[in-house]
Parts: sequence; structure tokens; C-alpha cells
Amino acid sequence: MRAVWLETQAMCVRDDAPPPAVAGEAIVRVLRSGICNTDLELVRGYYPFTGIPGHEFVGVVENAPDASWCGKRVVGEINAVCGRCRACLAGRRTHCEARTVLGIVARHGAHAERLSLPVLNLHEVPASITDEEAVFVEPLAAALEIQEQVAIAAGDRVVVVGDGKLGNLIAQTLQLTGCDLAVVGRRKEKRDLLQARGIATLDAGEVRTGEADVVVECTGHPDGFDIARRALRPRGTFVLKSTYAGDTRVNLSSLVVDEITLVGSRCGPFAPALELLAQRKVDVAPLVHAGYPLAEAVAAFEHAARPGALKVLLQP
Amino acid sequence: MRAVWLETQAMCVRDDAPPPAVAGEAIVRVLRSGICNTDLELVRGYYPFTGIPGHEFVGVVENAPDASWCGKRVVGEINAVCGRCRACLAGRRTHCEARTVLGIVARHGAHAERLSLPVLNLHEVPASITDEEAVFVEPLAAALEIQEQVAIAAGDRVVVVGDGKLGNLIAQTLQLTGCDLAVVGRRKEKRDLLQARGIATLDAGEVRTGEADVVVECTGHPDGFDIARRALRPRGTFVLKSTYAGDTRVNLSSLVVDEITLVGSRCGPFAPALELLAQRKVDVAPLVHAGYPLAEAVAAFEHAARPGALKVLLQP
Repeated sequence: MRAVWLETQAMCVRDDAPPPAVAGEAIVRVLRSGICNTDLELVRGYYPFTGIPGHEFVGVVENAPDASWCGKRVVGEINAVCGRCRACLAGRRTHCEARTVLGIVARHGAHAERLSLPVLNLHEVPASITDEEAVFVEPLAAALEIQEQVAIAAGDRVVVVGDGKLGNLIAQTLQLTGCDLAVVGRRKEKRDLLQARGIATLDAGEVRTGEADVVVECTGHPDGFDIARRALRPRGTFVLKSTYAGDTRVNLSSLVVDEITLVGSRCGPFAPALELLAQRKVDVAPLVHAGYPLAEAVAAFEHAARPGALKVLLQP
Repeated sequence: MRAVWLETQAMCVRDDAPPPAVAGEAIVRVLRSGICNTDLELVRGYYPFTGIPGHEFVGVVENAPDASWCGKRVVGEINAVCGRCRACLAGRRTHCEARTVLGIVARHGAHAERLSLPVLNLHEVPASITDEEAVFVEPLAAALEIQEQVAIAAGDRVVVVGDGKLGNLIAQTLQLTGCDLAVVGRRKEKRDLLQARGIATLDAGEVRTGEADVVVECTGHPDGFDIARRALRPRGTFVLKSTYAGDTRVNLSSLVVDEITLVGSRCGPFAPALELLAQRKVDVAPLVHAGYPLAEAVAAFEHAARPGALKVLLQP
């Protein structure tokens, strides 16, 4: 099958063997996959990975242990877990000690014609959600993870730093809480998308110091970290939603003096993400910047890496 | 009056004017004051401060707006607050935007014959608590702040990194929760003190990776931060209880991937600290290493700065 292949920071599209049948897993024919910033970081070598990248997808089940899945249109949670380790038994399945992660850790991913995932990871996609929208279930679930971890109430002052793909989804999900929300961003087109949804945007220079109850950092840059830290009030909550290249210099004393709570946040729940899309409570279609055939994945990755680019989709 | 004076990283004992009467404040004749690591950091110039340092004390009220306070033996909360700013009105009084802090921020402190504090900050000390013990109310309250912020239950695996004065108090208060507790420390004498209270101790090399539900870092050193981080399980809680010199290099990505919650923790509640001392549920007497007359404060500070030193007290 045709697949993107990543190896020592070089990528290509090549012909690869289709995924073999594995007990408990389904073979999914990919309809669309999305290029995530994590994919770009894998190409840049931030994390070691050799194989097929990609973890945002929608597809149709071709083969599954339980035949009732066959033919269904699905999205899939990306952590394949053992179910037996301390983390799994404690209910922290996304932190399984033996996990593989679709297109990220020891498991081939979604930028291919077919992928394999445990049946337990699959969620059927309602007919009202388009293929292009369904690709956003995974990052939308990640956005919703924030509300699994931090209670955000109507009127809470929340500042999201970063107006990219993830920042936009985070802002849309936070808006549903009735919080007093503003997104810090630099690019007019991205700010326009937020404003069209009724979400306030700010320049970094307009951020008020020490007033936010909650900040969400989703730029992955030290500058973004500093802006978010400055915006936060004492005893506020700082949600870290992006990964960072290497170590970051942090003034830990200020976190102690101001009694800040810092919360790392990763993968989230798929079911409410699907529900929000089905109910049209978030709008992801404007976030699609471009679509490429899988054969042109190298150009698609270049497109996704351009400053200001939003979601770029691949179609096998 | 006699007082320790700190100015541009140099300290001396000098004769100083006694504190003037201030509306709403009591004049307290100091019986004992304790030298805290924060005092040592002020001397080293980590924070700018000119004046009389010292924030751990017990004393007798000499003069107060309400005469019923006069003659009472008291300890005092160290943050003098405005009661009117956003933080005060929101119930975060220790984060008052206009606060002064006894011997730390814009307010003369306790290493003197007399000090002035708002009457609202005072707590009467029960007769069953000795002067030497009462000096520990402030750091004991800081130890108890952890349990104001983080729910720690019987059986939770908790690792405290640091076996000094604060680490010892934190361990004693955590022990009362019934948690599965171990303290990481290097010095036999300090570990012996903990073991005498039935608290397990570990070398850094004995700390198991990724098993602790909660870690408490109270060394203020990057090495301690790294040990604590390594001990913590995914989705665990990392309590920062010490300040650090300058910035620290932190792998923020690992906090995101493991969804760590990091909690800065500072001043705590005095009432339960007094109660624990009155009920003999914690034992602070063994933490007193030495007492000096106030006139010999320079020697006392040198003693307190020696590796392995525990609490050094001053007596005017």
C-alpha cells in the first residue's frame, strides 16, 4: 500500500506492506488523515520515530475480529494499551506503561492507505459528520481534556495563548463553558476565524498582567509560556497543552510565591468530541487550509509547516 | 532597640528605633525568633530586602488597639494585607496585591527586640506549647498548606525530597494522613530524626521511578527537582515547596506527556499548626540545633548556613 515513511528526519512516500492482522485489532481503510504539529516535530527529529506517521484520521473498517464493525466509518483513539499495567488498572489508560501510539510511538500511523488499531479504540462516526470534520475528532478530544482536568466555570477569566489549529479548537470548547475568554495570537487570518465565532482576541501586548484565572499555553514556544505566565493571577491554573523543543528555563520560585498550579494536558475523550461535532457546537471546517493526495504528502507536509498554515489533510 | 539589620547582602546587629505605633497593629516583644532558609537567601541577595529580617517568632503583646491582647503570648501570620484588593476580596489574602511580609517584603521582621504586626495576624499560643516550639508554627503552617491544596489520602504513595527543617515538618504532617511516605535525604542525623518518628527514608539512588502519586520538593535545588520528577507517576502531583535561585531548566514536554500537575505552595494556616503542636501530634523540639542571643545573630546566621544545620533560634 502507499504510505508516508519517516526515518532519521527524512520522509518520503513509498509502497509499503499493508498492516498484518493482529488479534483484537481492526484494519481501517483511511479516508482522510490530518497533519498535526506533532507530525512536523517528528520530521524535525524532536522525538525518535521510524515508520508511518499520522494519528488524526477517519476511515472505514475493512476487517475486524467482530464482523459487525466491518464497513463502519470510524475514528480511533491513538493510545493502544495493555490493560494490565498499573496505569491501566488505575484507570489511566492513556498513560499505559506498555502503550504504543498511532504514528508516534512504536506503531505505524494514519498517513497511509490502511492502518491497524485495537477495536477498543474505535468510535463510529455519525453520518452527519463529514470526513473532513471527523479528522478533527482527535485534536478536539485533546482540547476537551483540559475540562477533564480543570473545572472552568461561567465568568472565569481564561486566556488561551496561541491561535493555531489547537488553540482554535481549545477556544471553541472553552467558549461553551461561558467563561470570559480571550485568545492571544499574531496572525490576522487566524484571529478573524476566532472573531467570527464571537471569541475575543488580543495582541501579546494587550494581555493584562495577573488577571486570568486560567491560562492555556498552546504555542509550544518559551515566548508563549512567558505571556501565559504573565497573564495568570496568583493561585491561578496554567494549562500546558503543547510540547516544547528541549528544556525551557522556568522561574520556579515565582510559581511557588504565587502558588500557581501547572497542569500538563495531552489526549482527551473521543465521545464528547464526536458529540460536539454532531451537534454543530464547534466549527472545524474553516480550519482546513488544504487537501493533498497521499502521493503528494511531501508537498503537503511542506505546506503544513508554513507559518500561518492551519490543517492540511491527506487523502489516500 | 537591638535588631539584626540587613542591607545589600551585608548584615549586622545594631541599635534601631523601636517600631512606631500603627493603626490596627500590635507591638510584640519578641521572645524567640527562628532563622529560616529564606533569611539566608535574603542575606545572599536572592531577593532585594533592606531592613530587619525574620518571620518566625513567638512574643508577648506589649501594646495593641484592643487592650485585651496585651500580655498575651502570640505568634503571627507574616502577610500583612490590605483587605480591599481583588486577591483579598476573592479570599486569597496571602496573595494580597499590596501586601507587606514580615521580614521579607517592605516590613521589618522578627530578629529584633520588638516587631509590629496587624492584630488580625496574631494567634494566641496555648500555655502547653513552649517558646521554642511556638517558633515552628509558621513553617509548620507552610507544611500544612500542602494539604490545603492537594488531597492526600491513606495509602497514597508520597515522596518528600529533602530532609531539612521544612522537609521534616512536611513529612510529620503528611504522616498523619496515613499515606505511604518516604523522605529522600543525604544526612544520617536528619534521616535518624525522621526514622525516630517512624518515617521511612531513602537515598536518592533508592527512589523508584514513576511510582509516587505525590512528590514534594523542598530542597530548592535542581537536583532535588529532578529526583522528585523521576519519582512521580504519570498524572501525579508535584508540590513545589521551596524557592530556587534564578531560573531552572525544566523539560516541559515531559510534564505534558505525563500530564503532571505541578503545585506551587507557600504560606499556610496557623490555627491547625497550633493545634498539632498543642496535641503533640508533631515533634519540633529535636529540630532545634542551637540558640544564640540576638547580639550574636551574625554567628547564629553562620551556624544556620552550615551544611546539615537545622533550626537556629535567636533570643533578644
